[in-house]
Amino acid sequence: MTAVFELLQQDSASAARRGRIHTAHGSIETPVFMPVGTQATVKGVLPETLRDLGAQIILGNTYHLFLRPGEGLIKQLGGLHKFMNWSGPILTDSGGFQVFSLGKLRKISEDGVRFQSHHDGSHQVLTPESSIAIQQALGSDIIMVFDECIPYPASRDYVLESTARSGRWARRCKQAHDNSDGSLLFGIVQGGMYADLRRGSAAELVEIGFDGYALGGLSVGEEARMMYQVMEDTLPHLPADAPRYVMGVGTPENLVEGVRRGVDMFDCVMPTRNARNGVLFTSFGKISIKQARYRDDDQPVDPACDCYVCRNYSRAYLRHLYMSNEILSSMLNTMHNLHYYLHLMEQMRAAIADDTFTAFCRDFYARRQSDDR
Amino acid sequence: MTAVFELLQQDSASAARRGRIHTAHGSIETPVFMPVGTQATVKGVLPETLRDLGAQIILGNTYHLFLRPGEGLIKQLGGLHKFMNWSGPILTDSGGFQVFSLGKLRKISEDGVRFQSHHDGSHQVLTPESSIAIQQALGSDIIMVFDECIPYPASRDYVLESTARSGRWARRCKQAHDNSDGSLLFGIVQGGMYADLRRGSAAELVEIGFDGYALGGLSVGEEARMMYQVMEDTLPHLPADAPRYVMGVGTPENLVEGVRRGVDMFDCVMPTRNARNGVLFTSFGKISIKQARYRDDDQPVDPACDCYVCRNYSRAYLRHLYMSNEILSSMLNTMHNLHYYLHLMEQMRAAIADDTFTAFCRDFYARRQSDDR
Repeated sequence: MTAVFELLQQDSASAARRGRIHTAHGSIETPVFMPVGTQATVKGVLPETLRDLGAQIILGNTYHLFLRPGEGLIKQLGGLHKFMNWSGPILTDSGGFQVFSLGKLRKISEDGVRFQSHHDGSHQVLTPESSIAIQQALGSDIIMVFDECIPYPASRDYVLESTARSGRWARRCKQAHDNSDGSLLFGIVQGGMYADLRRGSAAELVEIGFDGYALGGLSVGEEARMMYQVMEDTLPHLPADAPRYVMGVGTPENLVEGVRRGVDMFDCVMPTRNARNGVLFTSFGKISIKQARYRDDDQPVDPACDCYVCRNYSRAYLRHLYMSNEILSSMLNTMHNLHYYLHLMEQMRAAIADDTFTAFCRDFYARRQSDDR
Repeated sequence: MTAVFELLQQDSASAARRGRIHTAHGSIETPVFMPVGTQATVKGVLPETLRDLGAQIILGNTYHLFLRPGEGLIKQLGGLHKFMNWSGPILTDSGGFQVFSLGKLRKISEDGVRFQSHHDGSHQVLTPESSIAIQQALGSDIIMVFDECIPYPASRDYVLESTARSGRWARRCKQAHDNSDGSLLFGIVQGGMYADLRRGSAAELVEIGFDGYALGGLSVGEEARMMYQVMEDTLPHLPADAPRYVMGVGTPENLVEGVRRGVDMFDCVMPTRNARNGVLFTSFGKISIKQARYRDDDQPVDPACDCYVCRNYSRAYLRHLYMSNEILSSMLNTMHNLHYYLHLMEQMRAAIADDTFTAFCRDFYARRQSDDR
């Protein structure tokens, strides 16, 4: 049996590393960014376009697919890959993040979480066992344990109690997971912003034993330097021969700083959601395409970018599409932003391979007119 | 100088014909359907996809582009082709149809039409001369004269007066048009549902002399048989060596019946607008993808269709996308419907070439569960 993760190269001047994850639907070069396909589609992009843009793996949301169209239907139709015409690897979250975001509409017990659907108010339950069963019915390649994403700020007592429960749930998930379909199971480190609780959570998960380890509960409103501190406090306590995933992160700067600290995997709605709001990522920072200054600007979004959008369309045209509320606005903006994110990861993998990662980081920040490191 | 139109073949059993129109941006095989790109984009489709689907020429709307972003800006940015990244031929309407649709917001005089923008209520004017100037600034390949699209029903007196004015306007358009850029100018036959007025309008336009002739004022609420009657009454009075275009038409049946009567060109928002509303065209008639019966239907939209959508997605997935209000729903539905329309035209061209058009029509109707001929 092939190892789940091959560590191919370690940067000489930082914790950055290059690796390869093997899944039932192919292997993934890391560090990797995973576009988010909430409702069995990455919003505004064809799967073939995703592939052309360099996406190696996408993320599906258990909460959304469970409620609509339902994992039973997707399984009956041949699984999520076939349903959405994506033959590459898929990672599914556990539904925990969305359920805990429901606030008053949910109630936690030791067994799991009762909540009301945001669609129709119907009463639903997710438990560690049902979350794993749903993800397996979807045919996920990388299954995440069901945990509580702790809000920020949170008291030490709350974090302690929640993290302990997430630990017990992780054990139940491991028990419930059937790996005969080749799916991998990842644990999720919690512990809020408390270094010792993070270390304790990491130790417990490593003791249970997972195919990979995620850091949860980040990008929930804390400052970037706290996020980086949690990475620094926690990642050294995770096995070097397993993939490390920081969930729901983040800005281009977050990706660079995460990779520098040894993170292998990221996901975030930022490139796709911002695209639909007219916010575009460039080598010199973000721009808002609706600004009047772009009205007659015949330049591409980023003159340094060679993506399909930058090769074929002006800022003036993209502004026109945005102001006209055209579908093509979301389509082109999403293509550009995903190219930006995926190309950034590709550049970081190449820099690690060439042992020039430190120079890459220096250059990355030098190009930005304003950096929010 | 090449003739604008080559008549390649005449069907032996009907007025159907196959031809070729030469424009400054390439030639067009007829009969042809032109997808509508109202605001410098065919909604929900990349220009490369349009080309792959077999679109030979697209339509732009003068009224919309005049108001936003303005023809001056588009000209400054290199013209409509470059602005929207479409290198094939473009036909622009005159703005007349939209302006006359504004109802109380517009006022007609001999000079032209004063109206209020539907965006901001600002006061605007379109005249025959300004409509031609706008279309020329856009860089249109086929320019339409500025006319009044007469509503249905309308009194004989009103139609008589309006058609006479449209005739005078057509003369002014011909005068205003500068063909040094290689653009073609098409006249538009009006006359409502009155055969003698249609004939009079046709004769007047032929006397003025245009590169092609359109029938306007159809698909405005009249029954299909009246539309076909107008085609039969009018088309024989137009020169056989010029292209004939029926504006704003129509259903698949309308296209077949139009071709049978000798029409060369069609445009309609139906395939693209219906797509966004979840209505899909198939060889057996229209379906509404939101219906509960498609919830777990693993068949393609049309088992007889070989388009990208039908090869890769189930009705159940398309229903899920529609119910989830996903952008991909509009994208895939639009691709399917445009393929249906463009493939239908391709089949008709092939049938005329093989002199099997009558058999094609018989087969077309036989496949449909309900036909609304």
